[in-house]
Amino acid sequence: MSNKKFVYLFEEGHADMRDLLGGKGAGLAEMTNIGLPVPPGFTITTEACNAYLAQGNQFPEGVLEAAYVALGKLEEKTGKKFGDQENPLLVSVRSGAPISMPGMMDTILNLGLNDASVQGVAKLTQDERFAMDCYRRFIQMFSDVVLGVEHHLFDTKMVQHREKLGLTYDYEIPADELKKIVEEYKIIVKEAKGFDFPQDVKQQLVMAIEAVFSSWNNQRAIVYRKINKIPDDLGTAVNVQCMAFGNMGNDCGTGVAFTRNPSTGEKELYGEFLVNAQGEDVVAGIRTPQPIAKLKEDLPVVYQQFIDTCKILESHYRDLQDIEFTVEKSKLYMLQTRNGKRTARAAVKVAVDMVAEGLITKEEALMRVEPNQINQLLHRQLDPTMKVEPIAVGLPASPGAGCGKIVFDADTAEKMGMDGEKVVLVRNETTPDDIHGIIYAQGVLTARGGMTSHAAVVARGMGKPCVCGCEAIKIDKSAQSFEVNGKIYRAGDIITVDGATGNVLAGEVRMIEPTLSDDFVTLLGWANEVKKLSVRANADTPEDAAKAREYGAEGIGLCRTEHMFMAQERLPYVQQMILAGNEEKRKEPLAKLLEFQRADFYGILKAMAPLPVCIRLLDPPLHEFLPNYETLLLEVQAMKFQHADAQQIEEKEILLKKIRQLHEANPMLGHRGCRLGITFPDIYVMQAQAIFEAMYQLKAEGIDVSVEIEIPLVIDVKEFLMLKEKIMAKYEELKTLQKDQELNFMMGSMLELPRACLVADELAKEAEFFSFGTNDLTQTTLGFSRDDAEGKFIPIYLEKKIMKENPFAVLDRKGVGELMKMAYEKAHATRPDVLMGICGEHGGEPSSVEFCHMIGLNYVSCSPYRIPIARLAAAQAAINYPRKDA
Amino acid sequence: MSNKKFVYLFEEGHADMRDLLGGKGAGLAEMTNIGLPVPPGFTITTEACNAYLAQGNQFPEGVLEAAYVALGKLEEKTGKKFGDQENPLLVSVRSGAPISMPGMMDTILNLGLNDASVQGVAKLTQDERFAMDCYRRFIQMFSDVVLGVEHHLFDTKMVQHREKLGLTYDYEIPADELKKIVEEYKIIVKEAKGFDFPQDVKQQLVMAIEAVFSSWNNQRAIVYRKINKIPDDLGTAVNVQCMAFGNMGNDCGTGVAFTRNPSTGEKELYGEFLVNAQGEDVVAGIRTPQPIAKLKEDLPVVYQQFIDTCKILESHYRDLQDIEFTVEKSKLYMLQTRNGKRTARAAVKVAVDMVAEGLITKEEALMRVEPNQINQLLHRQLDPTMKVEPIAVGLPASPGAGCGKIVFDADTAEKMGMDGEKVVLVRNETTPDDIHGIIYAQGVLTARGGMTSHAAVVARGMGKPCVCGCEAIKIDKSAQSFEVNGKIYRAGDIITVDGATGNVLAGEVRMIEPTLSDDFVTLLGWANEVKKLSVRANADTPEDAAKAREYGAEGIGLCRTEHMFMAQERLPYVQQMILAGNEEKRKEPLAKLLEFQRADFYGILKAMAPLPVCIRLLDPPLHEFLPNYETLLLEVQAMKFQHADAQQIEEKEILLKKIRQLHEANPMLGHRGCRLGITFPDIYVMQAQAIFEAMYQLKAEGIDVSVEIEIPLVIDVKEFLMLKEKIMAKYEELKTLQKDQELNFMMGSMLELPRACLVADELAKEAEFFSFGTNDLTQTTLGFSRDDAEGKFIPIYLEKKIMKENPFAVLDRKGVGELMKMAYEKAHATRPDVLMGICGEHGGEPSSVEFCHMIGLNYVSCSPYRIPIARLAAAQAAINYPRKDA
Repeated sequence: MSNKKFVYLFEEGHADMRDLLGGKGAGLAEMTNIGLPVPPGFTITTEACNAYLAQGNQFPEGVLEAAYVALGKLEEKTGKKFGDQENPLLVSVRSGAPISMPGMMDTILNLGLNDASVQGVAKLTQDERFAMDCYRRFIQMFSDVVLGVEHHLFDTKMVQHREKLGLTYDYEIPADELKKIVEEYKIIVKEAKGFDFPQDVKQQLVMAIEAVFSSWNNQRAIVYRKINKIPDDLGTAVNVQCMAFGNMGNDCGTGVAFTRNPSTGEKELYGEFLVNAQGEDVVAGIRTPQPIAKLKEDLPVVYQQFIDTCKILESHYRDLQDIEFTVEKSKLYMLQTRNGKRTARAAVKVAVDMVAEGLITKEEALMRVEPNQINQLLHRQLDPTMKVEPIAVGLPASPGAGCGKIVFDADTAEKMGMDGEKVVLVRNETTPDDIHGIIYAQGVLTARGGMTSHAAVVARGMGKPCVCGCEAIKIDKSAQSFEVNGKIYRAGDIITVDGATGNVLAGEVRMIEPTLSDDFVTLLGWANEVKKLSVRANADTPEDAAKAREYGAEGIGLCRTEHMFMAQERLPYVQQMILAGNEEKRKEPLAKLLEFQRADFYGILKAMAPLPVCIRLLDPPLHEFLPNYETLLLEVQAMKFQHADAQQIEEKEILLKKIRQLHEANPMLGHRGCRLGITFPDIYVMQAQAIFEAMYQLKAEGIDVSVEIEIPLVIDVKEFLMLKEKIMAKYEELKTLQKDQELNFMMGSMLELPRACLVADELAKEAEFFSFGTNDLTQTTLGFSRDDAEGKFIPIYLEKKIMKENPFAVLDRKGVGELMKMAYEKAHATRPDVLMGICGEHGGEPSSVEFCHMIGLNYVSCSPYRIPIARLAAAQAAINYPRKDA
Repeated sequence: MSNKKFVYLFEEGHADMRDLLGGKGAGLAEMTNIGLPVPPGFTITTEACNAYLAQGNQFPEGVLEAAYVALGKLEEKTGKKFGDQENPLLVSVRSGAPISMPGMMDTILNLGLNDASVQGVAKLTQDERFAMDCYRRFIQMFSDVVLGVEHHLFDTKMVQHREKLGLTYDYEIPADELKKIVEEYKIIVKEAKGFDFPQDVKQQLVMAIEAVFSSWNNQRAIVYRKINKIPDDLGTAVNVQCMAFGNMGNDCGTGVAFTRNPSTGEKELYGEFLVNAQGEDVVAGIRTPQPIAKLKEDLPVVYQQFIDTCKILESHYRDLQDIEFTVEKSKLYMLQTRNGKRTARAAVKVAVDMVAEGLITKEEALMRVEPNQINQLLHRQLDPTMKVEPIAVGLPASPGAGCGKIVFDADTAEKMGMDGEKVVLVRNETTPDDIHGIIYAQGVLTARGGMTSHAAVVARGMGKPCVCGCEAIKIDKSAQSFEVNGKIYRAGDIITVDGATGNVLAGEVRMIEPTLSDDFVTLLGWANEVKKLSVRANADTPEDAAKAREYGAEGIGLCRTEHMFMAQERLPYVQQMILAGNEEKRKEPLAKLLEFQRADFYGILKAMAPLPVCIRLLDPPLHEFLPNYETLLLEVQAMKFQHADAQQIEEKEILLKKIRQLHEANPMLGHRGCRLGITFPDIYVMQAQAIFEAMYQLKAEGIDVSVEIEIPLVIDVKEFLMLKEKIMAKYEELKTLQKDQELNFMMGSMLELPRACLVADELAKEAEFFSFGTNDLTQTTLGFSRDDAEGKFIPIYLEKKIMKENPFAVLDRKGVGELMKMAYEKAHATRPDVLMGICGEHGGEPSSVEFCHMIGLNYVSCSPYRIPIARLAAAQAAINYPRKDA
């Protein structure tokens, strides 16, 4: 039964055992084995955790026995004894999951202290105050984390004693007073729990291990896993490690460092150090730490040793490392190493630099950057030409600029954010309980905490703008306002935070679009070498087309013509066309629209030449071009009450009637797309004529263009054929006028309804290309109206874990994807060289791009700003799922 | 090239050669070969027609040559000569398609007459007047049908001459006057066409054959094929046959007869006879003919011969025959026989009688009744207890009763009918040009024509009520009214026609539902022996359930619970539940609704016990239970203008806001079905509780019931599982209160969205049954909102032949059907004994029922009144597509 090895000494593990030992355990093992100074310890495996949880919080046979054996080894190595009155062994107990979950899990330090062993510590260190301070810290931490006693009870006690003595800082409280505090702490525990604070150190250890295991399923951990899409069944390991003390005086301290700047990617040691402190003091953001460079001044030997260690670690792991260390009496101890989280900018720079340094290959570099993350590089920044005076400056904790209404709690942020309002979450400091609010905020501003504080780490991970440690702002939560330099800003007031500079600004500030760094361009160049998918843009104007080319678009995958109809000077003609009632009366407005459209197509084709441009003929229901029904309805009634001119009322009523006629119960499933083309063929023929005439004009100018004419919302080859024939007839007519010069174009259709996918074999007899319209296809396959679902029930579905992702953001492979695969196979069975792509928002989402690569599509098309993401995602997909085509 | 035999003498063909010789040709050949008196003739094949049309109206090589050879044979047989001045051969030229298309194609009689041969006819018959009358009829008919000269030009001429001589009837016009008319007719032709009326009889023959071939593609024929779903590529044959003259005096005549009554199915000769007339006079309905029995008095020998011939034909063809005959100088000639069209009532009776007579098998009997047609037996009739005085009485031409606004032309009937208005089409007589209006009418009333007139034949075929030959009504089309007994009825006035009695009634008359005849019950009993599909009913009330059992329902396939919520006394609680805002506040109205629902389920389960009842949990979006948004919007604005009480306005505004919140852009794809259950689990749990409590109550009464609890709109097994768990928890709770007695129920889901079909394998892990909701599945697979599509673009799609059928009426096999097959296979892969059915309107439509049988479903479910149709369709499907299951 228990042949399984549940406990590994650090020297028994290595870096590849991440799943079993957790990230932290594997890192400690690896560091131990490559000879770095790591306090001895052992790891209880994730398998033990999963078995424990599966058995209803019961240890599987052999776990504790093995832990005691390992503990014995630690005693041997250190010559100390667990719980001993003379030379006691103290340990830390930490969680460590296979995937890094910072701040999610619980940690206990100084375990092994009791009334007896605290004496040993005092004797050994010759520092009774230190010993008592450790003890009271331990009681507080253990009671909070393991026993569930509210920690403010202990805080209040400390404050009482400090104030009684008239002291400012905790560390000024003398040993005798701490002794009293320890006794009072014990009473707090007794009163809260009904039993004494455990003096049996083995019981302490067992309870701590259980607490770590159980914390895998605490609310914070569940939420973190949900937003980071981490499976629930990984479990966490437990690391038991001899304590190193950073809080034994000024030759002690603790720090956190990155081997390169995690914000910019610069090759420079980057970190923070807190003298005479334990690790939790840094991470919690309660005291603001010093830059790592300060260590050089204070403890130059230790600093040099640390620098060397960092180099060893980086070349060992071939990636940027995030390191925790402690200095005890001028001796360096490494407590953790892991691949460091970084901004997109840093990720790109580190990856490109490491290729240059010969550390990694180009393909590895491509895999090092998370496509979703680079979104932040492509997000807007404050316009640097604007001279704006910040109202305060904090730490630039996560780049990008965000603007919105001030809110002071995460629940409100979430609520307003879900309602579509832009908010900035303002907090003294954030905790894991705030994550749901950060998700919905445009940015985060905290009054306290450093670059590695919770808010900073989480915001960087999400690509949200964040300014931390902005101590100038004084938050009065009950008044729902903050004061800065005597000025009051209230909940609902608009502010802007600039996570690149740390500036906080009043009101909304003009922002500009980002440009690509040289490193980024280099990386994307490598992506192009690797990827199989073309990446096109969705673009409706020459300006969009130019922006798309700048970002590397290889064509336009979707040029929507309806946006062209919406322009102010055109809408009257469009309305005239709609209200005409018959083909004869449509002629005049159509002739006018022909001129506009010809110019539209000329512009966009010229901007993209010679790359392919896929033009979709008119798609939306006609009532979208008419005045709002409800507004007009009320207006007519109001005119009647106000006894307005009868003729005016009548005119409005005629319009109202027409809009009512065009009104649809479910416009998404209504009279739109090619159904318009079939009902009013003259509209599609006009559009085709505009395309052909623009192409002939460009041909005359010597400009080669390549056009794909796309029919939307097709469900049957007969629809396609009828429209194709009319369009081809127009082409033949125009060609005759152009000395029979041929134009370079294809005709194809969208695949955006389930039936289109099911009959793609028949469609492919006539259509030369297809583009999946996965927005519509998702709506109909799932029966989810996007307008209704995203606001109403998708959030509930995500919360209740019925869905892992919003299917409009991440392609639903099991439903929509299945239809796409089917359509791909059917279409290729009829026409092996059929061109197939995807347009719509999934085209720029990495997981969806991966799927498109896997099923064999030729291209993805997305908004210009997402093209770099799509290029990178396409490259990663090609690396992960090699495809045969050239 | 022309090895093909394009021309068959009647004696060379037989009944099985219908595709090649057409129905009429095959019938004539068969009658010839079994020794019946058929005037000699030959048939030019449908292949010749198709080749002619395919070559752009050019005769394929060999056709005319073979026709001339066959013509020679006729001359040999008769001793007459085509175009001869002494003993001329005259022929009829008739179309005959493989599928009977009455009145659709064109016929020419007396072909072979010219200025010379007319003399021969006069000499032979000793009747110059007869000869001249034949000639002028021929010129008129040939000119109209072949040359396209408008026939009213000729009619006017006849009227002029008749009036000039002061005569009442055409047959009173003497020979000399007819000679003048013939000359004037020739001038009409010359003026209209620019050439002389053809005197070359071979040219006449060729032109007539061409006219028949071309008429395959005339508008009337195309429309007829469209509504009767006849393929366009069958083509028509041409029958050239020696004339028999029914118009040579009072020992002559022509008639049409059915071997049994085509209206009731009674075994009695049924037909009409017109003395001294040609065939067209009967069919056109211009003169009202005598009953066939009259022939017995006038020509007893001929009558007996005819009776004998009918017997031979019926036992030869083993089916009711529709016969055309002519008596020339007391000699009987058979001109046509075919299986007779009949009413549903007649079809059932004839089929059942013929089984009793040993003529056909039960399976043949089942195949003899068209399931769509028996709809008319299931339609309402006038309530016989109502004493209503008819305003007029005509012929009872097609059974059933119809009521609607008077319209006087087919276009208006179509237009109003498409807009959902009920209309009765009132005409002097109908022509094939009126078919599109008859389709949309509730009934047809004509002032002229007999039981075999166009209106009667077409209406019977469609199962529309029709009253013919109602000569009392005087139609004034220009005034848009008719007068009857001095009273005026105008377009838009409501009338009721009773096709079973011939009564015409003013206003709307109470109607009653039909009951099943013994014959019908017998036939449906045979259907049950044969069919593999269970037939269930969609029923929401005990009354519906009782009606369903009466029609033979084998369970309820869909019991909708939302209709129960709509009842007047319940709606306030439903609204209270919706507006509650949280679970706590929902408790009270839910408790109230629980009581109602428990009683609902008790009633319906008791009514169906022990047959299975599938209960669908709440499905529609909640706003359907609230007041209309638009109405309320206007009301609130009006209240403001009218300075209504501020508090009242505020209350209304709160309600308005809630409705606006619930408003959806596309409710069909919105927050409904199980999405409600997931958002508000307490509603579904209440419904489940009501079901379980009703079941326990029935159990206590010793009544066994079988329930299927159905979750609507599922797309993922996680939705299903979450709701199943909550429902099962409620069950366990109630079971404990009931001494752990088990209830007999299953849980399953609708398959009504494409994704549900695509993941049916996963769903089947948890669901024990599935029901295809093909209304919704059609909407999403095709992207057709039913509310929008049926009124807006489906008519256009049908008209432009993009679709053959309205996909909401007839299941779209290629799209929706493909998903159904996929779902069937996936579900069975996981759960081989999974129960699968279909509910919704396709479940009662014969072609859809056939498809459900073919893919292997267990049952279909439809409205109670369509159950007999579904049973018959299921039996026919089982005969046509044998299935292995028991």
